[in-house]
Amino acid sequence: MKPIAKDVIDKVLADKDIVDIGKATIRQCVNVAQELEQISGEKFMHLEFGIPGLDACEVGIQAQKMALDEGVASAYPPASGVETLKQWGSKFIKAFINADVKAEGIIPTVGSMQGCYNLLLECSQLKKGKNVILYFNPGFPSHYLQAKVLGLESRSFDMHDFRGEKLRGKLEEMLSDGRVCALLYSNPNNPSWCCLSDDELRIVGEMCEKHDVIALEDMAYLCMDFRKDLSHPFRAPFQPTVAHYTDNYVMMISASKIFSYAGERVAIVAISDKLFHRFYPDLQERYGIGKFGDNFCLTYLYVNSSGCSHSAQCALASMFKASLEGKYDFVGTVKEYGMRARRAKDIFMKHHFHLVYEKDQDGEIGDGFFFTVAYDDLNCTSLILNMMRCGISTITLTSARSESVGLRVCMSMLNSEADFQTLDDRLATFEGVMEREYHDEYIRAIL
Amino acid sequence: MKPIAKDVIDKVLADKDIVDIGKATIRQCVNVAQELEQISGEKFMHLEFGIPGLDACEVGIQAQKMALDEGVASAYPPASGVETLKQWGSKFIKAFINADVKAEGIIPTVGSMQGCYNLLLECSQLKKGKNVILYFNPGFPSHYLQAKVLGLESRSFDMHDFRGEKLRGKLEEMLSDGRVCALLYSNPNNPSWCCLSDDELRIVGEMCEKHDVIALEDMAYLCMDFRKDLSHPFRAPFQPTVAHYTDNYVMMISASKIFSYAGERVAIVAISDKLFHRFYPDLQERYGIGKFGDNFCLTYLYVNSSGCSHSAQCALASMFKASLEGKYDFVGTVKEYGMRARRAKDIFMKHHFHLVYEKDQDGEIGDGFFFTVAYDDLNCTSLILNMMRCGISTITLTSARSESVGLRVCMSMLNSEADFQTLDDRLATFEGVMEREYHDEYIRAIL
Repeated sequence: MKPIAKDVIDKVLADKDIVDIGKATIRQCVNVAQELEQISGEKFMHLEFGIPGLDACEVGIQAQKMALDEGVASAYPPASGVETLKQWGSKFIKAFINADVKAEGIIPTVGSMQGCYNLLLECSQLKKGKNVILYFNPGFPSHYLQAKVLGLESRSFDMHDFRGEKLRGKLEEMLSDGRVCALLYSNPNNPSWCCLSDDELRIVGEMCEKHDVIALEDMAYLCMDFRKDLSHPFRAPFQPTVAHYTDNYVMMISASKIFSYAGERVAIVAISDKLFHRFYPDLQERYGIGKFGDNFCLTYLYVNSSGCSHSAQCALASMFKASLEGKYDFVGTVKEYGMRARRAKDIFMKHHFHLVYEKDQDGEIGDGFFFTVAYDDLNCTSLILNMMRCGISTITLTSARSESVGLRVCMSMLNSEADFQTLDDRLATFEGVMEREYHDEYIRAIL
Repeated sequence: MKPIAKDVIDKVLADKDIVDIGKATIRQCVNVAQELEQISGEKFMHLEFGIPGLDACEVGIQAQKMALDEGVASAYPPASGVETLKQWGSKFIKAFINADVKAEGIIPTVGSMQGCYNLLLECSQLKKGKNVILYFNPGFPSHYLQAKVLGLESRSFDMHDFRGEKLRGKLEEMLSDGRVCALLYSNPNNPSWCCLSDDELRIVGEMCEKHDVIALEDMAYLCMDFRKDLSHPFRAPFQPTVAHYTDNYVMMISASKIFSYAGERVAIVAISDKLFHRFYPDLQERYGIGKFGDNFCLTYLYVNSSGCSHSAQCALASMFKASLEGKYDFVGTVKEYGMRARRAKDIFMKHHFHLVYEKDQDGEIGDGFFFTVAYDDLNCTSLILNMMRCGISTITLTSARSESVGLRVCMSMLNSEADFQTLDDRLATFEGVMEREYHDEYIRAIL
């Protein structure tokens, strides 16, 4: 395709009230790209939005249809979730994470988005004065927006600068005033795809114990560190987790990516047995219910949505069951993303991009759902805008609160040979634009 | 059944951290009843929880299964909802409410619970200093809890004391300091089943215009004022609405009751065309998006759950379509609740209960999904506890912030001849308990 003129994009951004595309949310970027598709008549490459690029797990679809036939659509789901989902969720966690969480602590949510939203809110209300959220940067942009929407105070630091044993000192610094109630991270990391090691998770766990902080562990990409084979239920190696090192944790496990089931908006949180039953006087006073776990279901989730799709809960129960029984190999299925990443990275390198996060502690970063790229010394806004002009939609690392300049590139929509070819062509176009427009004085002055 | 001993119930309440059952939420009451069922070995009559007592609308089930077959489970629903749902939702509103709302303003939510939660939050953030919620009492208990969870300030008044033209003066008093951002009510009212008349809705609309307040109109029981025949699409009489008198409104229409589709957690909000596009500088500053409607989808709903079940959205679209095309008579189907109410009221009267809200302005209250009863001069806590002892689970009017003493009784679970017989027997048992225990000095002293 021919590059779209800059003023066309500027007009679309103005129409959509977007002041700086470099700071826009994913959904806003999607909207802009869709508008530009209509204007240009060309299909964009959607590398911004983590839509599953695989078909939904068939086990789930069959179970969900059966549940609908059995009449679940008329009945509110139980307050703490469908019993089979709680049971199989608990076993699934044992099988792939080697952690013990009782079924009562497995609570379904409308995606991990809802789980995290309500966990942040609950954690901030556990004890007066202890209400700050600590984020590990870079991170999932929506997680930051959640705190903003809820009016919660937060602090953060760039994980990249504090790998390994360095993490201990940094956490001590961030937590020592006692104001942090919870810390939040995704592992593998979105967008950098760095993975916290067991040593690092031990440090996180120890610091959570020391400062009475709850670790909120987003496992959206469970078992997707393909450098190790995590595909065998009940057999090491397992997905690393902070749950091995503290009782102050809640894991979030979503069906969206591991089972390509994003459309049905279903996930679970897994609240540690100890935290589930922990009594908080402030909660008792505010809601007449004192325990963490009961409040999560009966107070927070209840008034937020009264649970999530009854039939989708049945679907997720079946997918957990099939996976832990070895009848459905979810890791083998999503490994496709790793293969796409390998190929896409090569194409970006060919066109003189470089990886932003290229090391994971001492090793190479793994190939997974995301990677991060930058070009020359272009800033985030220029980078995303010029990629858009060439029909490639991404999000910036600025929106992920990285201190590095670059873009997050998602593998999900690179579905075919033709897609890789298109990527190659459009990155060539991008290079052409850079040569024509950015290597003359006029544009250099702007940059 | 034989009445359950009082100390058995006291122990269950203590185990569940419930200090006063008279102030418990519905979900807590359900939990207590379930525990007592296990202990007593007797099935309770669940008159507390508005579970649909009818089968889910078959049109929806078929459409949802088809959507799953077509692969929607893998794709996130669009940020502002599935297009067909938006289109048919807009037409459905025209057909049964005679209001004009463009498809863009029809946004699916995870039940009206999620719609209301996020509307309250958004309304409270539109303008600094204008952030108080006004509730019409009595009301749906969860609506009050939403403000508490979100830390929002609220005020309220008992609708019952200000019917007709009296409403104007009361609203003037409540709104005149300019701090109220939104007012919230259900029509028909939950729990009293009183219905705001067109004259009253006109007053609400005029006061919303005068004081720049947004009316949040919960239509959970759309077209269920069976005193009028509201069953014919595109033909008067229509469901009354504030939308006829102001542009400052959002309607909430849930599939839970009208289509008995509560399990799938799907509803729509309908934002007025004018409000959808209204620009709020405070929103622009906080989120980089200024318009009310865009923020609702792209900010609030997005970080809360990233939409609701894709397949359930398809189901709801089909149910709207079938209804407005006259192929599915949802009003005729739910009219069953009205017939049950007539019969249940007679049984309560036989056992010397009285209706709490028995008048609706000058007329008799209609027969619908709920009615309200009290017994002698028993207070709320004694009333609900002693009903529980006799195997009947309800919620108190205290939890609905009524100033009257009594219980809300829901028709949904009175499914068969045997249920009415059981109700009759258990109310006889209740009367026996009252005679034995409450008409002696010891208990009178407690009361």
